[in-house]
Formats: sequence, structure tokens, C-alpha cells
Amino acid sequence: MSAKNDTARTAEILAGVDALFDEQVQFLQQLVRIPSQRGEEAAAQEFMADAMAGLGLEIDKWVIDADSMRDHPGFSPVSISYDKSWNVVGTHRPKKATGRSLILNGHIDVVPTGVATSWAYGPYEPVIKDDWMYGRGAGDMKSGLTANLFALKALHRLGLQPAAAVHVQSVVEEECTGNGALACVVRGYTADAAFIPEPLEPKLLRGQIGPIWIRVEVAGAPGHASGDFGKGAGAINNAIELIQALSELEVRWNARKSGYPPFQNHPHPINFNVGRIEGGEWTSSAPSACAFEVRVAVYPGQSTADACAEFEQFITEVSARNPFLATHPPKISYPGFMAEGYHLVGADAQEAALRRSHAEVWGDDLKEHAFAATTDARFFGLYADCPTLVYGPYCRNPHAFDECVDLESLRKVTKTLALFIADWCGLEAKESEARH
Amino acid sequence: MSAKNDTARTAEILAGVDALFDEQVQFLQQLVRIPSQRGEEAAAQEFMADAMAGLGLEIDKWVIDADSMRDHPGFSPVSISYDKSWNVVGTHRPKKATGRSLILNGHIDVVPTGVATSWAYGPYEPVIKDDWMYGRGAGDMKSGLTANLFALKALHRLGLQPAAAVHVQSVVEEECTGNGALACVVRGYTADAAFIPEPLEPKLLRGQIGPIWIRVEVAGAPGHASGDFGKGAGAINNAIELIQALSELEVRWNARKSGYPPFQNHPHPINFNVGRIEGGEWTSSAPSACAFEVRVAVYPGQSTADACAEFEQFITEVSARNPFLATHPPKISYPGFMAEGYHLVGADAQEAALRRSHAEVWGDDLKEHAFAATTDARFFGLYADCPTLVYGPYCRNPHAFDECVDLESLRKVTKTLALFIADWCGLEAKESEARH
Repeated sequence: MSAKNDTARTAEILAGVDALFDEQVQFLQQLVRIPSQRGEEAAAQEFMADAMAGLGLEIDKWVIDADSMRDHPGFSPVSISYDKSWNVVGTHRPKKATGRSLILNGHIDVVPTGVATSWAYGPYEPVIKDDWMYGRGAGDMKSGLTANLFALKALHRLGLQPAAAVHVQSVVEEECTGNGALACVVRGYTADAAFIPEPLEPKLLRGQIGPIWIRVEVAGAPGHASGDFGKGAGAINNAIELIQALSELEVRWNARKSGYPPFQNHPHPINFNVGRIEGGEWTSSAPSACAFEVRVAVYPGQSTADACAEFEQFITEVSARNPFLATHPPKISYPGFMAEGYHLVGADAQEAALRRSHAEVWGDDLKEHAFAATTDARFFGLYADCPTLVYGPYCRNPHAFDECVDLESLRKVTKTLALFIADWCGLEAKESEARH
Repeated sequence: MSAKNDTARTAEILAGVDALFDEQVQFLQQLVRIPSQRGEEAAAQEFMADAMAGLGLEIDKWVIDADSMRDHPGFSPVSISYDKSWNVVGTHRPKKATGRSLILNGHIDVVPTGVATSWAYGPYEPVIKDDWMYGRGAGDMKSGLTANLFALKALHRLGLQPAAAVHVQSVVEEECTGNGALACVVRGYTADAAFIPEPLEPKLLRGQIGPIWIRVEVAGAPGHASGDFGKGAGAINNAIELIQALSELEVRWNARKSGYPPFQNHPHPINFNVGRIEGGEWTSSAPSACAFEVRVAVYPGQSTADACAEFEQFITEVSARNPFLATHPPKISYPGFMAEGYHLVGADAQEAALRRSHAEVWGDDLKEHAFAATTDARFFGLYADCPTLVYGPYCRNPHAFDECVDLESLRKVTKTLALFIADWCGLEAKESEARH
């Protein structure tokens, strides 16, 4: 049986997603209730593995291993242990592989919640209001993980399954390094296409930048706060001086966008974000040390090594203006993302299938956009010769208080994905076990 | 026997300090080797209590109690537990109280070390080089504590002792609240004079400002570092905005110095020191919170409550310029020093005695100065009707790396103190226990 996409089949698939949607929403609520910040993903991955097993998928569950990837160009440095960092992949194998294979990827890790009391309902309380579900990860991207599972389940409900291998991946580390998705590539997973339902709107993601995390450790000449005993060049003030100078470099990097498709018309592709700072020990002592972490970014095709070298050179130049820093240069290190950008090209067949499915569900043409951040798409696209489509529901306040996902868009994305699977992989009858 | 200060007696006393000085230096090294940062003072206080007992002093050792002082005007707020915060007072009682009583005060607590590897010899390794002893607390103020003990011991060596009550105090909390010295006042300790050998040079301290510690908690609108999802007013940037504005208030407060003796001619009495900062949770999220602690100060006679009100008003004004902060006002609290300034007046007799002793040892006239920080002198001077002399050795790098004390100045300060005790308290024969 091939993917016909005829009107009747399409209607059946769409109805199948609808029929399961209450269950999908409940599943998403259960998943949001399981915190999965970095280092505590194990319980949520267990939950995902059970769900995949329930779909009849063959489970591959392993602790990712930094040493096995350290020399890979996609590797990002880490300082934490991966002892509890489980990846889960559930594989569907067709009876007869007549279609094109597919990776359905999503990440289980969520970012910190910030002050929990600043949330309307608490970060892990998946309240639904006006058809938006709230909670850390409700959008980014536990919603997408449910789309991957329930698109397949809707087909099963019709007695159908993909006529090609499908690897459903739930990975760790998307929010800081990408080493979870990289571990899938290194383990040998690839396919004719990959699909990641990141909550970046139901548009085709044409390109993404590559974030780099940089830690800058700044010294100061400590001293008594009275200042009577010689001037202490306080480390906090020195750090502030560097942070403020960085806006100059950010302007310089954004000014280069015309050379980097698809970001020529993006309003501000390269955001510098000072996401953490810590300095000083004693309120009445001029601080001797202050460290901050800034997230910068490169364009698709731009070398991360070159960007780091330019950043370091800039810090050296700015430090030269400060007599203390000139002789006590800041120490620079890279504690996370060292990501290349990704520009989706050579994916005509994949894009065409998505266009058809999208139009069927939404009744309009698929639009595309470029994203001033990253997704795990880069690993499959750059290092596994597997063009990757990123397309997902609407999300408000990702990484912020009151993150929430639009459930109606999740329903439609799940429908689009189900139709895409039918189109890309083709369908075959799902043998009921009773018939054996 | 009265304090004669005649040539022979003076020479004997000075020779007595010299004879014990090697022992005093070794004692100081032992004391420096016992870390005594806030919360870990107990071992060093045990060591001090043993030394006081060895001098035949009557020991009073107690855990200070915040609740017993909370309503006292000299109290500074605390957030830590005082469960392990021991004060030690050793009291000498004369056979016949013919002289004037005296408090010899010093603090056992030291400030944090900063990066230990930035020290030439390690913060708790009391190396002596070119007659300077290095180490955290070597100057501020374990040297002074040894002066208190060894001035008395030098008199004992001559078979003499003060002809008045002397309370030798080793207190906690000088570096953050002063609640250790306050606890002595509340416990009833007072005298006709107090003497604190803080390492502020062998000069008379005419006045000191009163530091106030202020914690400012700043919010931000968190968000994804891509900035695509609406502008997050990052908390770290908001904090930097406030920190930089504070220099305006610092200028304003210093401009008032002409109204506050003895600081009219001080180059810069009021130092604002941003001693700590911490913000953000995730390098790729715009930070939702950032807190910093700043040390500000008031002049002698200026109300701390007025200064706090003015500070809060200033933060309100600056916040009004920032649309986010205007509706999310920073939270201000007071986690330490809430200290009044102190101006030494009405202490003619005490000063005259110090002038005589100083001239005898140093061969020049006693100079005086005003200090842009605090000492525990304020408690005895303001709240116990006990004029307090602050006078001590030379120290380099207090609160900094490679703090060190000039041992030759410590020797001379100990001599000056021994002569001062003889002058102020008078002397009587120390009954040898064998004679009983």
C-alpha cells in the first residue's frame, strides 16, 4: 500500500489525530509534570521509553558518552558528568521498506524555571487556559515529543504503519550543547529525512545560527572597601566594563548578515546574551574575581573557531584600555554550545512533502523563516547527510515565566506530521499480533 | 604603687616587651594559622581563651545572642545563625582599684581570602619576610590581639599588674555587623577607657564613618536568548544600570563632607563598594533575577535611617527611567552593617595618656587621622560612655591578597600599649601565687 494522500485516506488520518487528541493532551500534561532540567532527565526518559514501547517500537536506551564524541566537529565541550544522561530511540521497522526512512526527533531537557513564584501556576503545573497549556517544557519541546508519538499512533489506529524505518528520538542536552542528538548520529542513526517539531511556529525553518557559550573570568585587585589602602580595581566593575563593550562586537557581527543566507533580511540574527554572572565574596571587600557567561552566535557556514578567535582578540583589545586588565588578562573558556549554524538546502523532496501536508491541514501555503537560535537539526543536516525539517506548534514565553503552547496548533502540527509520514514513508498495513 | 612613668620603670617595661617579642611573634603565627572567617571562629577563640587564662584572667565565654540585642540602636541585622559565634573576655581584677579601668578590645574574625592561589604564600601560612608577617588576619587584626595580651604579660614579667580592672576582649562579627562588640556592651562591659589596636597605623583615630550593607534584588523579564520571542529586559543588564547610576549618589554624599567633622578634609570619606553580585541561571536565557550587595556609609552624627531612605528613593528614581524596572521595582534589604559613625570627643585624659606613651616609644608627636571605614570603637564610645582609642601597627593589603603586618611597628605598638596601661590604670605588685 503506498501513500496515496487521497481525500478519504487524508480524512481518516486527520480524524485519527482528532480522536486521540484528548489522550495526547493528557500525555503532555503527564510529561510536563516530570521535571527534566539538565541532569535530571532520567525519569522523563523512562516515561518516553514506556510510551515508545507501547507503540511497538524497538527501544534503544543508552547513557551518552562524551569521550566517544570529543573529536567530532559537532561536539560541544562539557564540564558536567553524563552519568545520568539517557537518550532513548524507538525504532519502527516496516514489513517491507518501500518508502523513505525518517527520523522524528525531539529533546526532553528543559531550561531552568527562574523564580518559581513568578509563574501564574507553577512551572510544573500543566494548567490549560483558553486552549494554551502552561508549564516549563509545555512548548519547548514536550509538545513536539507528543506530536512524534501521536502521529504514529493515529496511523496505527487506522491499522497502518510507515512503510519505511522510522526512528523516534528523545534526546538530552539540546539546550546547552546538542551532544544528545550528536550521540544519535555517532551511534549510526540516519535516514532520508529528519523532522523536529520544535515550537517555532508551523513554518519551515530555513536556517538557524550557531550559539557559542563563552565564560569570561575577570580578576580585580581586592582591597578594603574604605579605599584607604590603595585603589582596588574591583573585579565586578572590570566585568561590567567588558560586558558593556561587548555591545560593540555584537553590532559588528550583525552588520555582516548580508553575507550569510538565509539571514540577510533577519532583523537581528546575532544576540549576545549575558545569562549568568557571579562575583565577589564580601560586601566590604573590593572583589577579587567575577565571572560571567555570554551566549554569542555564528552564521551558517561561519567557522566557530574564527568567531572565538575574534571574540578573544576583542576582549584583549578592550582589556588593554584598563590598566589593571592589561596586566591581568581575563581568562576565557567554553563551557557549552560550540554550534555551527545550519542552512537547509538540497531538500526539495522533503520540503515538497511538508508543503503538501501543511496545505492539507492549514489550507494555506507553507511559509518559511530563519531563527536566531539553534535546534538539533544541525547534527542530521551537517554530519549525517540527512536534511532536517523543523516545524512545530505556537509557543509563548519559551525560557521565560508562563511558557505555554497553543493546543490547537499542536493538534494541527500532529495532523501535518501524520500526513507527512504517510507521504514520505508510505504506509503499509500494521499486522495485528493476533493474526500471527 | 602608682604609674610613675619614670625613666627606669619605662625602660623596664620597654625591655619587657622586647624580651617577649619572639614569643609574641610565634603566638601571632599560631593564631594566623587558625582560620577564623565568619562562622568558624570557635577554634581561634578557644586559643585566645587559653592564652587569657594563662595570664590569670577570669574568663567569660559566651555565644552571642541576636535576640538580646535586636532593639539596641547599635544592632545590625543578620541572616546567619550565631550558634557558633563565641565571644571571649578575660578580666583582670586588681588587688586595690586605685587607677582607671580599661577595655582592651580586638576582633578575631577575618574576611574571606579570595582566590587562595593568588597569595604569595597561602592565606593561612604566616611567612615572615623583611620583617613583615603575611597571612589573612596577620594585620586585621590578630596582631592587635597579641598586643593586648603581651602588653599585660610584659608587665607581669616585671612582677606588676594594672591597678584597675582590665577587660581583654576577643570578639566576633567586627567585619560585618559589629554585633560581637555590641554583645559585650549589652553584657555590661564598660570602663573608663577602651583601646583597640586596629592596624590603622600608630596614629590616633579621630573619627570613622558608619558602613551600611545594602542588598538590591533586581528582576528581569526572562526569555529565550534568540530574542525572537519578545524583548526580555535581562536582570543582569538592569542591575548594571543601577550599579552605574550609584556613582551619582556616591558623588552627592561625598559632597556633603564639609558638614561632618572630622571628615571635612578627607579626600573621599564615602566609598560605595559593590562587593558581591549574582544573577541568571542559564547562559541561553535572558536572566530573570540578579542581586548585588553594595557597601555605602554615613558620617558621624548622620542618621542611618535617613541614609537608607535616601538610597531607596534614589533607586526608585533611577528605576523610573527603565520601563521594566518602573513596574518591577528592585527589592532592597539590609543584610549586615547598619553602623553609625563615631567622632572621638571629650577624651582629653585618654588622649593625653596615649600621647605620652607614643612619644616615649616613637620619639615624635602623636598624629591623628579619620578613617573611611568602621571599627568596634563606636559601641563603647556611643553606647557605653567609654571613649575609645584606636591605634595600631602598620598593615599592607587588608582584605586583599598578601595582607601583612609590619612586625617592628607591632613591637612598638605593644610597647606603647604597655606604657599606656601603666599610665592609665596605674600599677601594683602582682602577687606571685607562691607568696600566698
